[in-house]
Amino acid sequence: MPSFDLRMSTLRAAYRAKETTPRKLIGELLAKAAELNPEFHLFIHVLNEDEVAPYLDTLETQDIDALPLYGIPFAIKDNIDLAGIPTTAACPAFAYVPTESATLVAQLISLGAVPIGKTNLDQFATGLNGTRSPYGKCRNSVHPDFPAGGSSAGSSLAVALGVASFALGTDTAGSGRVPAALNHLVGLKGTKGLLSTAGVVPACRTLDCVTYLTATAREASELLALTAKQDPRDPYSRVNPHFNDASAFGEVSTFRFGVPSTLEFAGCPESPALFNDAHKTLEAAGGTAVEIDFAPFAEAARLLYEGPWVAERYSVAGALMETQPDAVLPVIRDVLAKAPGTTAVDAFRAQYRLQALKRACDAVMAEVDFVLTPSFPRPVTLAELEADPIGPNSLLGYYTNFMNLLDYAAVATPAGFMANGLPWGITVFGRPFTDQYLLSIADRLQRMFAFPVVGGSAPDLKPLPRQARSDRARVVVCGAHMEGLPLNWQLLQRGGRLVERTLSAPCYQLFAIEGIVARPGMARVSNGGGAAIEVEVWELPSAELGSFLTGIPAPLGLGKVELSDGRWEIGFICDAFGLEGMREITSFGGWRRWIAAASGSVANAS
Amino acid sequence: MPSFDLRMSTLRAAYRAKETTPRKLIGELLAKAAELNPEFHLFIHVLNEDEVAPYLDTLETQDIDALPLYGIPFAIKDNIDLAGIPTTAACPAFAYVPTESATLVAQLISLGAVPIGKTNLDQFATGLNGTRSPYGKCRNSVHPDFPAGGSSAGSSLAVALGVASFALGTDTAGSGRVPAALNHLVGLKGTKGLLSTAGVVPACRTLDCVTYLTATAREASELLALTAKQDPRDPYSRVNPHFNDASAFGEVSTFRFGVPSTLEFAGCPESPALFNDAHKTLEAAGGTAVEIDFAPFAEAARLLYEGPWVAERYSVAGALMETQPDAVLPVIRDVLAKAPGTTAVDAFRAQYRLQALKRACDAVMAEVDFVLTPSFPRPVTLAELEADPIGPNSLLGYYTNFMNLLDYAAVATPAGFMANGLPWGITVFGRPFTDQYLLSIADRLQRMFAFPVVGGSAPDLKPLPRQARSDRARVVVCGAHMEGLPLNWQLLQRGGRLVERTLSAPCYQLFAIEGIVARPGMARVSNGGGAAIEVEVWELPSAELGSFLTGIPAPLGLGKVELSDGRWEIGFICDAFGLEGMREITSFGGWRRWIAAASGSVANAS
Repeated sequence: MPSFDLRMSTLRAAYRAKETTPRKLIGELLAKAAELNPEFHLFIHVLNEDEVAPYLDTLETQDIDALPLYGIPFAIKDNIDLAGIPTTAACPAFAYVPTESATLVAQLISLGAVPIGKTNLDQFATGLNGTRSPYGKCRNSVHPDFPAGGSSAGSSLAVALGVASFALGTDTAGSGRVPAALNHLVGLKGTKGLLSTAGVVPACRTLDCVTYLTATAREASELLALTAKQDPRDPYSRVNPHFNDASAFGEVSTFRFGVPSTLEFAGCPESPALFNDAHKTLEAAGGTAVEIDFAPFAEAARLLYEGPWVAERYSVAGALMETQPDAVLPVIRDVLAKAPGTTAVDAFRAQYRLQALKRACDAVMAEVDFVLTPSFPRPVTLAELEADPIGPNSLLGYYTNFMNLLDYAAVATPAGFMANGLPWGITVFGRPFTDQYLLSIADRLQRMFAFPVVGGSAPDLKPLPRQARSDRARVVVCGAHMEGLPLNWQLLQRGGRLVERTLSAPCYQLFAIEGIVARPGMARVSNGGGAAIEVEVWELPSAELGSFLTGIPAPLGLGKVELSDGRWEIGFICDAFGLEGMREITSFGGWRRWIAAASGSVANAS
Repeated sequence: MPSFDLRMSTLRAAYRAKETTPRKLIGELLAKAAELNPEFHLFIHVLNEDEVAPYLDTLETQDIDALPLYGIPFAIKDNIDLAGIPTTAACPAFAYVPTESATLVAQLISLGAVPIGKTNLDQFATGLNGTRSPYGKCRNSVHPDFPAGGSSAGSSLAVALGVASFALGTDTAGSGRVPAALNHLVGLKGTKGLLSTAGVVPACRTLDCVTYLTATAREASELLALTAKQDPRDPYSRVNPHFNDASAFGEVSTFRFGVPSTLEFAGCPESPALFNDAHKTLEAAGGTAVEIDFAPFAEAARLLYEGPWVAERYSVAGALMETQPDAVLPVIRDVLAKAPGTTAVDAFRAQYRLQALKRACDAVMAEVDFVLTPSFPRPVTLAELEADPIGPNSLLGYYTNFMNLLDYAAVATPAGFMANGLPWGITVFGRPFTDQYLLSIADRLQRMFAFPVVGGSAPDLKPLPRQARSDRARVVVCGAHMEGLPLNWQLLQRGGRLVERTLSAPCYQLFAIEGIVARPGMARVSNGGGAAIEVEVWELPSAELGSFLTGIPAPLGLGKVELSDGRWEIGFICDAFGLEGMREITSFGGWRRWIAAASGSVANAS
């Protein structure tokens, strides 16, 4: 396989240096796609010169600096609409020609990206292996005895084989993450509703997500930041809170990650060691592992195919299945067969069970920053799938099926290779709207592993310019909000957690402010005379920071405070007028030592 | 009907003044309940002396100041468990004796409240009129020709007739709000999940809410603040964000309220004028009415009984209905009859339709602080219900059925009387977690109407000690965040809205701070020399205030700023060190005038 580098940063640099043009590059890629297809069956439809021309013509009238995705080639899973090109969902009898592109496709094109073709998939996106298609079975990008993984099989191959910079997949049960893992890619299964699904053939409409398949977490972060937008065409789309915008992608420092206390590797001799590598790498990156009970996650996973959610799939393919049974692959018919007999009572009861499991899982998730699992227990071979099209497929979903049901975000990340060269991967998943934080973890892992990216190029090892952020905010407190002191309940009742006892930078003065509750004011001084003040760093849900701020009376407020190691975190500041006439207590080095030293009447003022 | 005053504040005062004791008062109330029951059928079970004794005994060992609900009598709808007393759901064959109280009942008891009995209801809480019970039909508290309204019929009567200070109802389709309206009560149908439903016989488990029925909004506010708590026993319970805690209940000033452009009064000659009174009263309170399209709300309402949600009811009562058809009232059997034939596919399709309607309704709700509707199109008579048990019942739900499906909070509020003396009411509803704000509106309405409360006492007209708060926070900006200036996008992208252009109190200095974006720092001065500075007040979702704060660099931050009318709102403050050496521009009176006056290089710095 020839080497290639289609990373977005690489292409942008090449375009700027005039080493190539979108027209030239994409012409080459379309030829490459046609060449690869007989062996890999990755495309159902490769755009021809006429079909791609309008996109390239438009680019020639545009400035590269005006379009963040100028000339970036991308592939589209064939259950996502591209205007004027048939959408088949890998079922010829189901095919239609959309007049309008899916919202997300239209967004990407308007940002300068160029669609190159519609990729093969497990029919109706029902499968995790990539062989359930009348358009041919998708073998793995590296090893001919293994499948590409699915259902976004062709999309993963388009990126892994160097035909596109990124590809759109879909992921309801793991369809984006499993092929990512099997082809050394990043697969972003973002928070449900962050990427529009308007113009996507539904699998389970209440659960479906579009996936970005990329060589690197950095690219997935950039794509997500550009396109996460509530869509009036998609009733399930959601507003992305701004703590999860582009600026949240950054360097992670200390964190806590969950690891299932019992792991399923289905007898694989190599997967445990590969997983252990990832575990140790995260610890080396500053992580503290926390054992978690995986049972409720695994039980939720089973609901997806054993429960009434198959009725959602049936509501898409059922009519065709009834009128033209042979138009639907036998394995898909088997999966959907029990749907017509499932009642609304069954559907609601399963939703109650799911809600109970979600409560248990959410309690686990509240205690960690994210969870680490393998992306699958072990790879399965094409021969195994030939012998049993259901069992090995189900095995691939062990670590993925629960994700959308439970409303978590997940990033499948490359994490090494089997002895036979087959890519192997892990998944990090977390609370909804922690996508950019999870991508920050994935980026850190990619840099620490330092594996070449698909195509053989060296990874980008440059640190990111800012700190990563999740759905938790950090607040530096120096007075009555510290642990055990009179206002600490305001943090605790918001789910606050003490993460660090440390000192401010040595340039602050401390004052005792009079009020209903005795409390200090910290003031930065630029001309000497300050000291390092004892502070605590607390963490609380970003969404609760506003109500915490609302409760803070003048002259105090929240701004940025410098810590002894040079970090600036959100912390208490004081309007200057509030310090006038107040007693300076800097020499005590902190509020606790002041209240200990001061008279009982001061200490007990609250 | 003798007058009474069982408001919580009244009882507390009486206990403190030793005018009565819980034992004495509750003894009288139990006797009164027994006396009223033959006519009104409000209780299925009144606690006897032995049953109530343990609660009273416990109180005698407690300090009134330690228990916020010390000695407050409350009634419990008989689909909510009280340990040791049968729960019937108004179906004797369904009855069981719970060993544990519902979480909410246990919470109330631990706060000092005393249960006095289990109240009558429409069987399985399926009905809005209060006559669907084998324990007798509940007539209205005021007019004998009208029903109490249901399904929380007995609970509404317990408060309206003076047997309890408050009562617990449930509300899935309007079961708490309709009887509140028909009996001159406040009915709080809070945000789904705020009050635990563990130990409540489900109607539709995904939708059920417990309702507080009270004489006043103030009492409902207090009860909600005391008991809104996530419950591990209830997988559907949710965390109450702190912008909706007790401190959010206060005085409302200016607000925008939606009013349906087309109203349904079902030919009632009196309801339009009564509604118009409420409309005008809200305008007099500082509200601006906005016409809204009610069609998507009405369509969502129809889904509740025409769609698959009846399967949820069937999952509770179905087994009994199959084995002992006569144990279930014919009208309930009729309502549930189509449930067994409803498929999971139907259930999911209805959920898709609901989601689309919700998106349309949410867009309406985003533009207003709340919506005002009647609580029902018109009252219906007992004779009408006798002639047709379905149609008139459905009419009562026209303004209530959509609420839980769409996840809104609602407060039914007394709003006058028909010529025949029958109480009439309006409902204010809003986005989830605006409960305390809606109660603030209801309180304001109660004070402006100044009707006597149930029992005939004068309402409490004292203003509330603080400003009301909703899920939106206000931020005072004085520089680059103002409309059209370089950082204004940070407010707009968070859904910010300019609500007011005004001045600060005349005691601030303004400085020009150098940085990447030119911006001012405002500093309060206590010794003269300050001025009134031009500012803008913006509103943005409270949950986004944290990420807005995160983006503010030192020396700036958010604290409290005083406006010219004496209000203190969240606004920009500046750490004192940041003003050192900066140019004071107070004399310009505001940032816009400074940038207009300053050189082009300053104005264009961003």
